[in-house]
Amino acid sequence: MTRACTAVLAFAYALSPIAPVHAGDAVAGKQKAVVCSACHGIDGNSINPLWPKLAGQHAAYLAKQMKAFRSGERKDPVMAPMAMPLNDTDIDDLAAFYASQTPK
Amino acid sequence: MTRACTAVLAFAYALSPIAPVHAGDAVAGKQKAVVCSACHGIDGNSINPLWPKLAGQHAAYLAKQMKAFRSGERKDPVMAPMAMPLNDTDIDDLAAFYASQTPK
Repeated sequence: MTRACTAVLAFAYALSPIAPVHAGDAVAGKQKAVVCSACHGIDGNSINPLWPKLAGQHAAYLAKQMKAFRSGERKDPVMAPMAMPLNDTDIDDLAAFYASQTPK
Repeated sequence: MTRACTAVLAFAYALSPIAPVHAGDAVAGKQKAVVCSACHGIDGNSINPLWPKLAGQHAAYLAKQMKAFRSGERKDPVMAPMAMPLNDTDIDDLAAFYASQTPK
C-alpha cells in the first residue's frame, strides 16, 4: 500500500462513525491514578519525555491503549502489569480523569 | 510482579537519566506532517477521539513511537505503512513540530 493510499484510507477512517465511548468517573479515576502518577505525573504531565503526557488526551484513545496493554496487543514491560488488574470501569475512570486534566 | 513492585520499578525508571534527544526542525516537520494531518489534525489535535492528540506531546515520546511503528515493535495497520518510509531526521522533525503545537 502506498503512503498516499494509506492517507486516503486513514482519512476515510477519520470520517467513519465514532466508536461508542463509556463515560468514566473522573473523580474515581483520580483515586485510581495514584499508582500511575509515579511516571505520568499527578496531573498526567509526565516528567520523563520518553513517557507520554496523558493530560487532555482523548478519553477514548486512552481507554483503547489501556485495553491494548491489558490484552498484550500493545506490549510494554511496565504498562502490561499495570494494566492487567484493571477492569473496564477502572479504565474508563482513569481515562476520564486524565482527559479532564490540563496538558502543560 | 505485583502492581506495587511495578510502580516502584516505574518510579526508579522515572528518576533514571533521560535518553538523549535529537532536536528536530519543527518548520521542516510541518511540511512533512501534511500527510499525517488527515488523522491527527493540521495542528496535531485529532478530530477522532480514538486517535491521539499529538499537539504538545513530548518530542522524545513521539519519536520513540514513530520508530516503534517503523520497526513493527508497535503494531498498527495504518501507522505501520506511514512510518515505514520515514528516516530518523523525518521522525525528529515531525516530533519537533507536533511537540511545538498547542493541545486543544
